[in-house]
Amino acid sequence: MSTNALISVVYHSGYGHTAVVANKVQEGLASVEGVEARLFSVDDVDWDVLNASDAIVFGAPTYMGGPSAGFKAFADATAKPWFGDAWKDKLAAGFTNSGSNAGDKQVTLQYLATLAAQQGMLWIPLAVKSANGLNRNGYYLGLGTQSDNDSPEVTPGDADKTDAFNFGVRIAQATKRWKAGA
Amino acid sequence: MSTNALISVVYHSGYGHTAVVANKVQEGLASVEGVEARLFSVDDVDWDVLNASDAIVFGAPTYMGGPSAGFKAFADATAKPWFGDAWKDKLAAGFTNSGSNAGDKQVTLQYLATLAAQQGMLWIPLAVKSANGLNRNGYYLGLGTQSDNDSPEVTPGDADKTDAFNFGVRIAQATKRWKAGA
Amino acid sequence: MSTNALISVVYHSGYGHTAVVANKVQEGLASVEGVEARLFSVDDVDWDVLNASDAIVFGAPTYMGGPSAGFKAFADATAKPWFGDAWKDKLAAGFTNSGSNAGDKQVTLQYLATLAAQQGMLWIPLAVKSANGLNRNGYYLGLGTQSDNDSPEVTPGDADKTDAFNFGVRIAQATKRWKAGA
Amino acid sequence: MSTNALISVVYHSGYGHTAVVANKVQEGLASVEGVEARLFSVDDVDWDVLNASDAIVFGAPTYMGGPSAGFKAFADATAKPWFGDAWKDKLAAGFTNSGSNAGDKQVTLQYLATLAAQQGMLWIPLAVKSANGLNRNGYYLGLGTQSDNDSPEVTPGDADKTDAFNFGVRIAQATKRWKAGA
Repeated sequence: MSTNALISVVYHSGYGHTAVVANKVQEGLASVEGVEARLFSVDDVDWDVLNASDAIVFGAPTYMGGPSAGFKAFADATAKPWFGDAWKDKLAAGFTNSGSNAGDKQVTLQYLATLAAQQGMLWIPLAVKSANGLNRNGYYLGLGTQSDNDSPEVTPGDADKTDAFNFGVRIAQATKRWKAGA
Repeated sequence: MSTNALISVVYHSGYGHTAVVANKVQEGLASVEGVEARLFSVDDVDWDVLNASDAIVFGAPTYMGGPSAGFKAFADATAKPWFGDAWKDKLAAGFTNSGSNAGDKQVTLQYLATLAAQQGMLWIPLAVKSANGLNRNGYYLGLGTQSDNDSPEVTPGDADKTDAFNFGVRIAQATKRWKAGA
Repeated sequence: MSTNALISVVYHSGYGHTAVVANKVQEGLASVEGVEARLFSVDDVDWDVLNASDAIVFGAPTYMGGPSAGFKAFADATAKPWFGDAWKDKLAAGFTNSGSNAGDKQVTLQYLATLAAQQGMLWIPLAVKSANGLNRNGYYLGLGTQSDNDSPEVTPGDADKTDAFNFGVRIAQATKRWKAGA
Repeated sequence: MSTNALISVVYHSGYGHTAVVANKVQEGLASVEGVEARLFSVDDVDWDVLNASDAIVFGAPTYMGGPSAGFKAFADATAKPWFGDAWKDKLAAGFTNSGSNAGDKQVTLQYLATLAAQQGMLWIPLAVKSANGLNRNGYYLGLGTQSDNDSPEVTPGDADKTDAFNFGVRIAQATKRWKAGA
């Protein structure tokens, strides 16, 4: 009998690029047996599903050196589950996308990990060394993808999409393990 | 002939506590001869004045481990001056208020310093040792005040207000010096 | 049959205060049935035990705004297990002590979480709200204690020691759960 | 009459790559008229020169997600000037080098900015947009260079060296302006 786990991805996407990454993470999650993976834009969150989830994955574009205001508005609204310890001991992970290879994307990942910590959630890092085209941007705390100034249909590219799918698989496996041990 | 400097404070305040701090910073700025100090809520920013300012002070409450979405929406909108290098080589400083003594207020100050760096602005730190009731919360990157769960008329308290006024004076003096050297 | 878990605490302590916290964390760990808790100063680390541990807790004083050089030398030496993914999917947690209530202790906790992420370890946050004397310094990412300028026999005080013991218990329970689910 | 400014670069380099960057920053500093630029490895610091400097530039390789222990030992030793406010109101800037394009280099730059803030020093950011081969790694808080797994004679490459030289020029000009305004 398999352990069934419910995992939600909550993301904001201003121009569609972060949505591409969110969808790939969700595909990776859903590819693992026994995992139900839900995907929510911050504009259309089902709080009952989040509260029932075993893990929540946060995704935000990096704008002006940090998580977008659209994502931050969602984060501020999580004061309600925080107040009731509703997300304590769930698992969490995070990803961000921006136009630059590096730099301030780390600030967004740090924020997402801070949010998770405040909620009492355990944080799942990327755990992929930067080599052979994987994790080409060299992040460890979470996934940092990069899109060019073009349509979300063509960017971010395949390497980043593969990282996103693999991260979903990793998050799903960790969540099943955490749930099985309860 | 005195050097005249224009300094703006831009803040978001959800419940009025951060506004108290913003007002005290502005008082400190305005107490220095030759300084014109302007105060803007993020809901009512005059971008022409910001663009003309010699220094800009950023203020945001810490909500859920980072700057409030209200402040972040303003920060995201600074992509326009960033694009044109309009704020490059201005001075910057920052403050935050929250209900807890410590912890994640640092994340907000880090974000404000990141925003300033992305704009190419030089960052003025608090430069007050935590002692004798001054800088009681022990921050260095900027000013971190703390309010109790009560009306902004009574909290944050006098020690934090004194820190805010003094920080305004320091920012004003640094700005005059920076402008005089141009 | 109980799950047996091995958990190590690795700490640096310049003046003995961080050692007090480390000991209390270890007491908390060891109070949980089925947990073997080992305590290592950075000067006397048994790498075989670390590599065999199910979880590793990092402890460093905050000196000049970050983890002490003594701890950082240990962290730099973890490049060897990192290279071989030896610590991947272990659990991790962290604590820091300093003379100030707040501020830059967060930078040390952020560094410890960064180190854990680079190693591919899942991060266990404190998960205690700042109230009723618990978590009096208001940290979430890990434990932040504060010592006065006095002997480690009298400072940090009982409240911080209780937080340290409780954090040990929490880490032990999470580790048993994570191991049981494998 | 030109303003004469004294600027020091203090760096740690484990394998020689960060030393290459430090030398290029110093070249940039020294190329500006009226600037005396001194270069110190952390193993051979002249504290009198640092204390007399108008600006200090910090350089550290990123090891295991943060500044190297070698640099941190120097930073810990700056408790002495900190105690006496000896570096208050000097200018500061920072750079880091690592083998990865991105990610945790930001943590090192954040630490260097934190150190500067604790000392009460104003922070000069890079202020170069990531484009046309400049600032190819996309950092803003300071300079983040990247070296391959090869000799310091060939890596980091020319683009990063140009960034380092230009950053030196920028730091020198800011320091002259700050000093002239005193």
